[in-house]
Amino acid sequence: MAFWSDEQLASIDRMLNPRSIAVVGATPRMQYGGRFLAAAMGSADQGVNVYPVNPRYEEVQGVQCYPSVSALPEAPDVVGVVVPYHAVLDTLRESHEKGAKSAIVISAGFAERAVDDRRDLQGELGRFARESGMRVSGPNCLGLANLKDDIWASASSRGASGLSGPIGLVCQSGASAFGPFMTRAVDEGIGFTYIVSTGNEADLDFCDFARYLLDDDDTRVIAGFVEGFKDGRKFLEVARLAAERGKPIVLIKIGRSDLGSRAAGSHTAALTGVDEAYEAAFAQYGVIRVQDYDDLLQVSNLMARCPRPSKRGVAVVSHSGGISSLTADMFGQAGLDLPPLSERAQDGINGILKGFGWAANPSDVTGFANSDEFPAIMSYMAEDEGVGTLVVASAGADPQATQVIAQRDASGMPVAFLWTGTRGAQSGLPMLRQAGIPVFYVPDKLAAGVRYLNDYHDWRERRLARGFAQAGEITDEQAGAAKALEGSGALSEYDSKALVRAFGVPTTREEVAADAESVVAAAERIGYPVALKVNSADILHKTEAGGIRLGLGDAEAVRNAFGDVTANARAFDANARIDGTVVQEMVSGGVETIVGVSYDAQLGPILLFGTGGVMVEVYNDVALRLCPITREDALEMIDEVKGARLLSGFRGAPVADVDALADVLVNVSQMAVQLEGSLGELDINPLMVLPKGQGVKAADALVVGTA
Amino acid sequence: MAFWSDEQLASIDRMLNPRSIAVVGATPRMQYGGRFLAAAMGSADQGVNVYPVNPRYEEVQGVQCYPSVSALPEAPDVVGVVVPYHAVLDTLRESHEKGAKSAIVISAGFAERAVDDRRDLQGELGRFARESGMRVSGPNCLGLANLKDDIWASASSRGASGLSGPIGLVCQSGASAFGPFMTRAVDEGIGFTYIVSTGNEADLDFCDFARYLLDDDDTRVIAGFVEGFKDGRKFLEVARLAAERGKPIVLIKIGRSDLGSRAAGSHTAALTGVDEAYEAAFAQYGVIRVQDYDDLLQVSNLMARCPRPSKRGVAVVSHSGGISSLTADMFGQAGLDLPPLSERAQDGINGILKGFGWAANPSDVTGFANSDEFPAIMSYMAEDEGVGTLVVASAGADPQATQVIAQRDASGMPVAFLWTGTRGAQSGLPMLRQAGIPVFYVPDKLAAGVRYLNDYHDWRERRLARGFAQAGEITDEQAGAAKALEGSGALSEYDSKALVRAFGVPTTREEVAADAESVVAAAERIGYPVALKVNSADILHKTEAGGIRLGLGDAEAVRNAFGDVTANARAFDANARIDGTVVQEMVSGGVETIVGVSYDAQLGPILLFGTGGVMVEVYNDVALRLCPITREDALEMIDEVKGARLLSGFRGAPVADVDALADVLVNVSQMAVQLEGSLGELDINPLMVLPKGQGVKAADALVVGTA
Repeated sequence: MAFWSDEQLASIDRMLNPRSIAVVGATPRMQYGGRFLAAAMGSADQGVNVYPVNPRYEEVQGVQCYPSVSALPEAPDVVGVVVPYHAVLDTLRESHEKGAKSAIVISAGFAERAVDDRRDLQGELGRFARESGMRVSGPNCLGLANLKDDIWASASSRGASGLSGPIGLVCQSGASAFGPFMTRAVDEGIGFTYIVSTGNEADLDFCDFARYLLDDDDTRVIAGFVEGFKDGRKFLEVARLAAERGKPIVLIKIGRSDLGSRAAGSHTAALTGVDEAYEAAFAQYGVIRVQDYDDLLQVSNLMARCPRPSKRGVAVVSHSGGISSLTADMFGQAGLDLPPLSERAQDGINGILKGFGWAANPSDVTGFANSDEFPAIMSYMAEDEGVGTLVVASAGADPQATQVIAQRDASGMPVAFLWTGTRGAQSGLPMLRQAGIPVFYVPDKLAAGVRYLNDYHDWRERRLARGFAQAGEITDEQAGAAKALEGSGALSEYDSKALVRAFGVPTTREEVAADAESVVAAAERIGYPVALKVNSADILHKTEAGGIRLGLGDAEAVRNAFGDVTANARAFDANARIDGTVVQEMVSGGVETIVGVSYDAQLGPILLFGTGGVMVEVYNDVALRLCPITREDALEMIDEVKGARLLSGFRGAPVADVDALADVLVNVSQMAVQLEGSLGELDINPLMVLPKGQGVKAADALVVGTA
Repeated sequence: MAFWSDEQLASIDRMLNPRSIAVVGATPRMQYGGRFLAAAMGSADQGVNVYPVNPRYEEVQGVQCYPSVSALPEAPDVVGVVVPYHAVLDTLRESHEKGAKSAIVISAGFAERAVDDRRDLQGELGRFARESGMRVSGPNCLGLANLKDDIWASASSRGASGLSGPIGLVCQSGASAFGPFMTRAVDEGIGFTYIVSTGNEADLDFCDFARYLLDDDDTRVIAGFVEGFKDGRKFLEVARLAAERGKPIVLIKIGRSDLGSRAAGSHTAALTGVDEAYEAAFAQYGVIRVQDYDDLLQVSNLMARCPRPSKRGVAVVSHSGGISSLTADMFGQAGLDLPPLSERAQDGINGILKGFGWAANPSDVTGFANSDEFPAIMSYMAEDEGVGTLVVASAGADPQATQVIAQRDASGMPVAFLWTGTRGAQSGLPMLRQAGIPVFYVPDKLAAGVRYLNDYHDWRERRLARGFAQAGEITDEQAGAAKALEGSGALSEYDSKALVRAFGVPTTREEVAADAESVVAAAERIGYPVALKVNSADILHKTEAGGIRLGLGDAEAVRNAFGDVTANARAFDANARIDGTVVQEMVSGGVETIVGVSYDAQLGPILLFGTGGVMVEVYNDVALRLCPITREDALEMIDEVKGARLLSGFRGAPVADVDALADVLVNVSQMAVQLEGSLGELDINPLMVLPKGQGVKAADALVVGTA
């Protein structure tokens, strides 16, 4: 619980469930100050005291107005701040003195202006909030709404008033939260516990509100729209806790392309991390990433409304063959199976259809989708072998909706609806929405949603079973070896390998030798054939420098190579420090792979695995994970890389030692965590994976320190 | 014009624009027969004569009813047939005798029942239509609607009555045409020229109606939902003509997964082709493939409403930073560029924003999106350098819509709207729809749409410039070489190479020799090192049989290898016909590629290109095209394959002879066309691509005849 204190969560609690709201900068006009007051006033029926504050008015929108926060009759739970940017800090100070519990700063003009003094001002605002304990949302946000109790502390219309439901929505963009998300949710009858906009996040950020929602029993899914995380690791902690509690996080995260980052960077001043690292993190922590407004709402609703399917198979029933076949096609594309109908179910349904339609999965039940027999048809399909989810694709009038709701209630299984009619239908559709049946409007989105539903629960079961990987203790020996990094940039290949060996990565046998006879002696100890490489931390690309000779089969070859290699290296860079040469065991018969570590500013150490050589460069065929990883994570990484087929006996080659490879991935992930701060990057390329039982060997390695 | 006759198009014309409609099987009840009559009756105001036919009634739905078609007072332009399946053919015969011009068979119970006698009955129906010249749509369809004149000959509600527009919609599935497509189009105010459902396509099919629509000036885009084409080449001809005339075809085509094909196969009895071949065909013929109801409508509308963008750059203006950044992110993901705003435009917009928002691309113009200054802001962005399309992302009330429409009208450029509010908005949105501004509701779909708009027109320009490839004449020499295929299955490597050489594919030098001394003599002529391979059409996998020796450097090695290879082959298969051995030039220093030909039942010869070896097998990294191809097609194929980076000087290797490779691709594509019927498949693997100027060489080839 390093990231959150009880006091902080209590302050958020007051902000989201206030009994009193002050609105500083309240006006009669329907601009931000006036809108905030009007929205707050709508909460008066719920017993919330609302206090306009503005020295220019005695009364605003029919309510008594106060000249200052200090003049209020009580210390408000939350203060809405709608004053010019330069007056915000004073308002916060006064509110704190009055005893206010929290504040929401609507005012803009801070870090989003991308000039230093405004960034500084925002920093000051954040510091004040943290030091005073009166926590702040914003600036440059639109506030928040509590839909459970219909209490609004926002500068928006009360557009979703009365629409409570199981989704907690947190967005950095206020105009998105109270724009498309709110209006589309109203369109579809999808309800929220809370809608929160966090703006520039001077103090409280997305993760803080998400953390609060984890403790809220009414919130079953956390939905978010994030342009950039202020603290990636804080997000990971939220995601970890969410996984433990079984509350899915569904996110739109900007950063799919550079264009989005450019826009996000300009307007919220939030950092947008490298997208690939986030993709890896989301996969590793079970976060569902979607990419549009409707997706976020529909997928969140599905996740909140449906239990875990007992099986991955889907049954699709429709009144139309064309609709059935498109739906089935999309389920196939999403990687889900429609198990063929059992004979029992076929017979049962054929007994109803009597020669019309098609008793199969997907089925085409023609007009029987709107008949008294439809419940029996649904039951046959839903109860069939291998079926965990029932999908109805239709647009029937009311009796159909009642039947589908009854089927859901009786079976307790996930039932989703593909609505194929007008979105403005007055019969059927509103009942489905009201009853919490997840409704989709196009087959591919429905199929993707059902895939998420299955994948999330399957992922969570695996994750809870294996746990999240923990950082291990560094041994004295490892700490000693890591001294090589102190004040260092790139290490030589020889030193790099020595370091990775200390952390559990087997390497080729090798010795340093600085004259021809020592080189020959070393080669005899190692055994022919050997490789000879110039040993220099200053020459990173040894091949270009002519500093490598491979496959040397006898003493004579070694002696000649020594002369060449040292001469070439000198000619390549007269100033390079050269510490003799490395005599190295040649590895043959293995599969080339690459293992690497980099550090993401937001997410920390990232482990990379790929198959070596051309495959990585041409196909970018790599798997990434945040460090550390478990052994199961390692095996999944290997599985994820297409080129890893080469490890399993491709074209008659021997099966490679995947167990040893997995060990190395785990060890390197621990190394990356333990050496964070001193290690800058690491490349083991190639890591040769030998036939099963013979282990792996790093044939080359490059360690770069942070100095 | 081999596929269509003037008579056929005239019959379709009567069906789509009838002055008289008979409804055989008309009833008072609102089942198919009653619905067809009611829909047709709605056309009476347009001066269409509607005749119910049913011996059981004197009058139906208030209209005089006739006992038979022959009793009608005139020969109807179209006869709607809604009688039991076994009575359909008689009804058609009677209608033809009466002089009817066309018929629509709603009745089901034909090939979709997947039993032989019903398939036969459908075949008979199709034959009757073709022979009589009274062409037929259906059976198992829902009919069609002419929205231009509001004339309906369909067993559906007149749900889109009055909604005319530039899209011609043709669907095999009637429940889809008059279900989701019609209702969603009404939701969005997207209009049609015609809606046609073709059902089982006993006679007229998707392509016939699409062909008709090419001649209809009011139809600017052809939209379709196809489960399977009856004749793939007919579709290609439609697509070719559509490209010439600049009418985009936008399609949903089932077959993304096996599940969809299973469903489609079961219900329309249409053949679903292999999806990869269709993907290639669509790319080659400029067909836009989408995958859901809303996509089909929104993309078709965009294509119909927007001119070609003058540049590929997009400008995005919004009232919100969060909405802007998500939109920009999606444009980046779609591969389109948002050119940075010029200083002039920045200054101009900043002069309006006065410190609020963000003058950039994408821009965040805050409340100025709903102000008198919005037109000036849009102009600055739309007229900026590199901008060809303007995107407005907002949900403003009416003045905003008027401004956007005026901007579109004044600039004549593509203007698309991302509507971020409720879909039921009463202000703004209806005006945009009415004015034909393409509206999208989520950013990724908008971005994909604008990408299609740019890509289609760019593709068409290139395609019109280069033309579609034409089949060349086969030479006498080639025809002679092709005799080897007569009555033949697989050819030996030697014969296979001789055949491909005749069609312009350079191969390794090689000679057949059947005793040790001839082998050595051949090797001396070819030059060492050589390869030696057993020569047998019965041993296709020579490596497994021990029938190959590579890199033989002198006469002695060749002599020994000859003994081994023949002995191994004998041991491997005592019954194999062995025609000595092939002495073959060794090729070194090239890049391995693969070139192949297969034949698709629907689309004919398909050319495959990939980089050789592991890349193809692990990554399925291949490009496909229908044959024949142009040289530009060949270069595009090469470009499409990721592994082709190896051809352009990867990691310091020499640049490969891509020109020679392109020649071979063109030549093989011609060969595939010229030998259709006798050639079954062809593999050139590897085709070695040598350094620039040195050409290519087939090191192995396998030709399989159809016998």
